Amino acid sequence: MLVLFTDFGEGGPYVGQIKAVLAREAPGTDVIDLLHDAPVFDAKRSAYLLAALVDPFPSGSVFLCVVDPGVGGDRAAVVVEADGRRFVGPDNGLLDPLLRRADRPAAWSISWRPAALSSSFHGRDLFAPVSAMIARGEDVPGVPTDVDTLGRPEWPDELDEIVYIDRYGNAMTGRRANTIPASAAVEAGGERIMRATTFSDVPPGTPFWYENSAGLVEIAVNMGRAADRLGLEIGTPIATT
Amino acid sequence: MLVLFTDFGEGGPYVGQIKAVLAREAPGTDVIDLLHDAPVFDAKRSAYLLAALVDPFPSGSVFLCVVDPGVGGDRAAVVVEADGRRFVGPDNGLLDPLLRRADRPAAWSISWRPAALSSSFHGRDLFAPVSAMIARGEDVPGVPTDVDTLGRPEWPDELDEIVYIDRYGNAMTGRRANTIPASAAVEAGGERIMRATTFSDVPPGTPFWYENSAGLVEIAVNMGRAADRLGLEIGTPIATT
Amino acid sequence: MLVLFTDFGEGGPYVGQIKAVLAREAPGTDVIDLLHDAPVFDAKRSAYLLAALVDPFPSGSVFLCVVDPGVGGDRAAVVVEADGRRFVGPDNGLLDPLLRRADRPAAWSISWRPAALSSSFHGRDLFAPVSAMIARGEDVPGVPTDVDTLGRPEWPDELDEIVYIDRYGNAMTGRRANTIPASAAVEAGGERIMRATTFSDVPPGTPFWYENSAGLVEIAVNMGRAADRLGLEIGTPIATT
Repeated sequence: MLVLFTDFGEGGPYVGQIKAVLAREAPGTDVIDLLHDAPVFDAKRSAYLLAALVDPFPSGSVFLCVVDPGVGGDRAAVVVEADGRRFVGPDNGLLDPLLRRADRPAAWSISWRPAALSSSFHGRDLFAPVSAMIARGEDVPGVPTDVDTLGRPEWPDELDEIVYIDRYGNAMTGRRANTIPASAAVEAGGERIMRATTFSDVPPGTPFWYENSAGLVEIAVNMGRAADRLGLEIGTPIATT
Repeated sequence: MLVLFTDFGEGGPYVGQIKAVLAREAPGTDVIDLLHDAPVFDAKRSAYLLAALVDPFPSGSVFLCVVDPGVGGDRAAVVVEADGRRFVGPDNGLLDPLLRRADRPAAWSISWRPAALSSSFHGRDLFAPVSAMIARGEDVPGVPTDVDTLGRPEWPDELDEIVYIDRYGNAMTGRRANTIPASAAVEAGGERIMRATTFSDVPPGTPFWYENSAGLVEIAVNMGRAADRLGLEIGTPIATT
Repeated sequence: MLVLFTDFGEGGPYVGQIKAVLAREAPGTDVIDLLHDAPVFDAKRSAYLLAALVDPFPSGSVFLCVVDPGVGGDRAAVVVEADGRRFVGPDNGLLDPLLRRADRPAAWSISWRPAALSSSFHGRDLFAPVSAMIARGEDVPGVPTDVDTLGRPEWPDELDEIVYIDRYGNAMTGRRANTIPASAAVEAGGERIMRATTFSDVPPGTPFWYENSAGLVEIAVNMGRAADRLGLEIGTPIATT
């Protein structure tokens, strides 16, 4: 199974071109769109979001991950293995939280290059063919690399910031809910917010936090838009107390 | 064939996680996205829209339907059969117009529960595995239920309101066009609007109504955006005279 | 392989209904979404965009192309063959740049009509079944037509206008980069813009133009939104000097 995680946006021309390459290079393989509206140019917030979303995907899945503001520059291209899943993408920290949390992570620096490599669309020209090779069962076309030599930014284990706002206005954070007590309050947008199990447990219009379906602390308002109500954006800090 | 109808939004993380479950539980089955921008939290308008959109799908199709503001509360989960198609979703009225219009409808209350059920994402944890079971040809994992004992809201047969606004600004209503005469006028946004067969039959800029490709009364403006021109939103009432 | 190029918008109800028809009429065929947010009602800008995006798709691919403001009127429906790929769509110029650039183009006027043809959704009722017939290997259901008798608008070989703005705010033009020297300046939004190879070659905030991954002149700003910075919209003219 090939899984796509990008900041390309849905509907635009980039995802379709990647799928053309995958259909040509790994025909018959299931391709699933996990997310295409990852925070734009924002490898850090995207990284914590990605790490929280992979659980439903079986071991053996190959993830093509592109949030790549440095495309065309000198950042390396890597393949990472974490808990039986493999991830192909830029070496800019996007795969770092996955590595930190994996049991026996492994990494390869991608040495393969296509005959024609555009300067701006490595997703199509480099990451997609490499993902297809792995999906076909071929060896990773690269050099095994010590996980600790990868670009490992000085990022925290849990990111106390908003990393995603969904269509309902719910605001996901980069903090895993099982790292704080259920009695903890979350401070965000100038308000002190208590936990509830789910939406129907609080009156309409009341902000609360809960452990969302990906295991993250999420700030929500029953029948309302938490992001609007509390003025939350990608990157807004939170505190847990 | 598995068909998805949700208010999750396109591009976000929910649809991809559902597809991961479907690929694992019903491998090889076609999965088609029918709609992911159904009116948010709005089972009523979504219900009339859904009922109008199922015709192109063959008998035997299984629809996974999630517009579910009460997720995590005590609403039941149901499977409904209408005209040879089966629909899996919350028992909140979303499937009611389909039932009313079906020849010999049937319904089951879903008794199956997964080992782990999140409080906020029954689409992934409950409705997707159940849809996959049905797609695999297994019996519906539930208790046959009298159709009339389902949550049947006091909704009208035809909904004289705007239920969807498309990318062109055309405004679909919950009224089937064959329930009013072709000579009828539609009042919406303070204007009295006459019927035309299609866009090119009226001058640019003129509002008209027509029977859209789903059989609904739709309000449009040739080469313009009817919703903006007439101030129409989801839920705006119309009258037919 | 069936490829979809439309202005229907992602998420809305039209793409899913087309896919239902394709799954029924050409089961087992790969269906790839190339673009669904082509400029609305705008066959001209869409045409130059489409012509630039087909390269990654193999010979034999069948493209279902719908940007069709004249649907329901008297425009013809056509199939065009260009460089081994076939394109099904309205005869409104949308396929014209493809024809101009092809080695040995061919065209057919579609004579086939479905039992039921809606006035507003030929994508589902006419173009999708015809695309499926071709994908199944059947003869094109139409009359061979002299390419020069098609609706060939008086459009330029290169379109010096903005034709698409992506999620990052980058602005694609209808001008192929290999038709101007690398030293050329592009004037857009009142500024004179020089070429760079890629984003990381210029300081953050600086506008530049480059040859994008589709071969087009694209105006961008490193770590910024060119369309906002320069006031560019679909249709904004550019000049190359």
